[in-house]
Amino acid sequence: MKGTTVDTLTTYKEHLKEMNIISSALALLSWDQETHMPPHGITARSQVSGRFAKHLFKLAIAPELGETIEALAADSSLTIEEQASIRDIGKQYRRQKAIPSEMIEEHAIIRSQAQAAWAEAREQSDFAVFQPLLTKMVDYSRRFADYYGYEDHPYDALLEEYEPGMTVEKLQAVIEPLREQLVPFLRRLATEGTPPDTTPIEGSYAVDQQRELARVALQLIGYDFDAGTLDDVAHPFTTAIAFDDVRVTNRYLENQVTSGLFGALHEGGHALYNQGMPENLYDLRLDGGSSNGIHESQSRMIENLLGRGLPFWTYFQPVLAEIFPQFRDISPEAVYRAVNVVTPSFIRVEADEVTYNLHIMLRAELEAGLIAGEIQVADLPERWNEAMDRYLGVTPPNDALGVLHDVHWSVGYFGYFPSYMLGNLYVSQMVTKIRQDLPNLDERIAAGDVLVLIEWLKKHVHQLGAVYQPDELMTRITGQTLDSSHFIRYVEAKYSDIYGLT
Amino acid sequence: MKGTTVDTLTTYKEHLKEMNIISSALALLSWDQETHMPPHGITARSQVSGRFAKHLFKLAIAPELGETIEALAADSSLTIEEQASIRDIGKQYRRQKAIPSEMIEEHAIIRSQAQAAWAEAREQSDFAVFQPLLTKMVDYSRRFADYYGYEDHPYDALLEEYEPGMTVEKLQAVIEPLREQLVPFLRRLATEGTPPDTTPIEGSYAVDQQRELARVALQLIGYDFDAGTLDDVAHPFTTAIAFDDVRVTNRYLENQVTSGLFGALHEGGHALYNQGMPENLYDLRLDGGSSNGIHESQSRMIENLLGRGLPFWTYFQPVLAEIFPQFRDISPEAVYRAVNVVTPSFIRVEADEVTYNLHIMLRAELEAGLIAGEIQVADLPERWNEAMDRYLGVTPPNDALGVLHDVHWSVGYFGYFPSYMLGNLYVSQMVTKIRQDLPNLDERIAAGDVLVLIEWLKKHVHQLGAVYQPDELMTRITGQTLDSSHFIRYVEAKYSDIYGLT
Repeated sequence: MKGTTVDTLTTYKEHLKEMNIISSALALLSWDQETHMPPHGITARSQVSGRFAKHLFKLAIAPELGETIEALAADSSLTIEEQASIRDIGKQYRRQKAIPSEMIEEHAIIRSQAQAAWAEAREQSDFAVFQPLLTKMVDYSRRFADYYGYEDHPYDALLEEYEPGMTVEKLQAVIEPLREQLVPFLRRLATEGTPPDTTPIEGSYAVDQQRELARVALQLIGYDFDAGTLDDVAHPFTTAIAFDDVRVTNRYLENQVTSGLFGALHEGGHALYNQGMPENLYDLRLDGGSSNGIHESQSRMIENLLGRGLPFWTYFQPVLAEIFPQFRDISPEAVYRAVNVVTPSFIRVEADEVTYNLHIMLRAELEAGLIAGEIQVADLPERWNEAMDRYLGVTPPNDALGVLHDVHWSVGYFGYFPSYMLGNLYVSQMVTKIRQDLPNLDERIAAGDVLVLIEWLKKHVHQLGAVYQPDELMTRITGQTLDSSHFIRYVEAKYSDIYGLT
Repeated sequence: MKGTTVDTLTTYKEHLKEMNIISSALALLSWDQETHMPPHGITARSQVSGRFAKHLFKLAIAPELGETIEALAADSSLTIEEQASIRDIGKQYRRQKAIPSEMIEEHAIIRSQAQAAWAEAREQSDFAVFQPLLTKMVDYSRRFADYYGYEDHPYDALLEEYEPGMTVEKLQAVIEPLREQLVPFLRRLATEGTPPDTTPIEGSYAVDQQRELARVALQLIGYDFDAGTLDDVAHPFTTAIAFDDVRVTNRYLENQVTSGLFGALHEGGHALYNQGMPENLYDLRLDGGSSNGIHESQSRMIENLLGRGLPFWTYFQPVLAEIFPQFRDISPEAVYRAVNVVTPSFIRVEADEVTYNLHIMLRAELEAGLIAGEIQVADLPERWNEAMDRYLGVTPPNDALGVLHDVHWSVGYFGYFPSYMLGNLYVSQMVTKIRQDLPNLDERIAAGDVLVLIEWLKKHVHQLGAVYQPDELMTRITGQTLDSSHFIRYVEAKYSDIYGLT
């Protein structure tokens, strides 16, 4: 390596270190705001967080950062981790630089207003209250797409933010077969299938014990409490405050033991991804994971593939019964079946494995249409309800349970939704490979050896952080890019069995 | 006000705002470190906190700050709050500028080593392990005193940090009568008095319920949970993260219900001081309070004057009995007497009202001697034990329970100890005035109206923050500067009664 490269690299890493310091403070300020901060603390907190966010943004578009990125961009003497860092930080630099600064400030103001309008509209179940601001938010995202640039479809420019390399074309290639298979399969379940008995899991569950159950579940999957915490919140999330400080949050519903348990497993899956990365990936700011979709795959892997599987319940039913004795005489299989009931509903976050992706497809199609200018904001409520009926066979009785029920659009997260679906698809594709590598996986999970799965994930996914982009990562792991057939096979086999389809 | 003053003042306040942003982040980072941070988070956290501490220090000695201070120093068109801010920020600026920067860095390194050596020495109960580093720490403080400057005694320069205006001479004027009265009074209690029965408070107390008790006690004194939190820690403290975000921490011992309760009242007293200040005092960085001693007076007011008084227990015994039914048949007076047993011990933080100040006098005298060069570090263990015997009538069996048991010297807090004693003296002097203003205070407290006391404190102390220095504040409130006779009368009357001295 040349001397100048060494110096430039040092400058680059020092700059990232400064960004990491601010990011870590911001992550803590934000975590605290959701978990422990007293309500009146919000005024001062907004000022502190706002100032640091601005500082971080300045660092992200600093000209001296741009210079080091340019100098190092084509330097093949760098490690692959360093090259990946230059790739991602460079991309972020160019995207943030692309937007005129006054537009960023305008957007922030409109976003605050849009969030407030959305909350009010949802409360009143009146889309008209949100419509003018949503129109503005869509307009901003369309202009952002133009500034970012794209080849085929403006939505591609937004997808890139959350799922590097993803395009409308690729998305359609996975959505098409999903739609063709899943929609009729869901109809078959409803008309020909016998739903599992859910009474075994119905009841009332003390929150203190649910918290204990969540803790036990997190320990089982190898979540390291010496490098993390579990706290209560209204809307669960996982956050990496820093290397070796990755925190899970969760919530508990008195009448639904599964909500808190699967929530903990889901967030625990995210946390394992971050706990499994070496420190140098944090230093290089590669700790965000390969993509939102790959991150989601790790949470879904733990929540669904593991937590909603029969082998897990073979081991876990006695654990559950120790904390909640009412489960003592309920068989693992009865619990397994009860937690896998399929219920088309209006609410995405409560959706089961079969219907979840249908919720996402609906949103992705509407988003792409909005950004392309093919769908008008005013038509959204009708479009939403029509698609809900077509995909899920249910029609929301009002806008609060329909077009208004997700927060994402009010904060301008256009392009984010597909990651949720992609996560599910990545899981199934990885599992095909995992079952080849670990032919006795089910037996080992049933014996409580969950860590055999976690070790595999750590080796093939977690420890690589954001070094590889999703397509490359999936190819390295499975030999092919994304293919939704794995998911379709998984769902059809599992739910045909549970619903007694022949 | 002249136009230039307005501009300079705006610049000054903007600079303080920047300092407040960093201070708030630092306070949260530190609070989190003690309350929720997982153990492995410490490495990254030290880097983040260290970077912010450095940044704050830079802001505190920034030349542009020095210029605004100079320009505004003699400007009588400023409000008294603004003048007080210029006074305090200016003093901090001059003191921090006075020390050569390389010396500050050396000191930080030696301090880390001294803390480690102290911990090891205490563990091994071997002063020799700590002695070389303590010698260095004393030497640094002596040199700091020279840089800060003083008129009569080098220790004055250090006292100034914690107790503005305090000097060795003034300290001796309050310590002399204390020593003359308290030491023989303690002997009389031991030889002629009948100790109260402590069995009523002995027992085992579930920590969850103690936490609930602490919460109830904090609510009683008017601590605002909408602007604060209560969390568990190993070493309790109170911290103002920002205006309207003042957090209390506490700890609970299974076998001592009083420890957690008085701890909560003590920290609650500190917190009320900060919750009682208006926002502009935070903006002007006057939220630290008049001095460490005045801050301590507010915690001691709640812990001792209120919490260890008979009127409080008249109201609170049924409250206690509701949470811990074993107190149902124990009279308020029996609890009152039990919580006021006097026990000369080796440990300052566990000391009662009679012996507490004796612990502090001992430390203050040794510190002043060390800083003046009249006492050698090597002689400390012997000096300590001799003074313990002379003041308290007990001799520590080893250095861990003797000269090594406080952390303060290892972190260089020379000049800090006297504030603990001064707090107790300020309380009694204030109480003389409070009883004049509120002649039926005891009856109202006994009826549960604790807020009548808190309102008085808010009006005369809390809402003023650091606007007035201790001497001025005490003169405004009581008509005289510090006078230890109030404390002596209080202690002699209360404990003569409890111990049946005639």
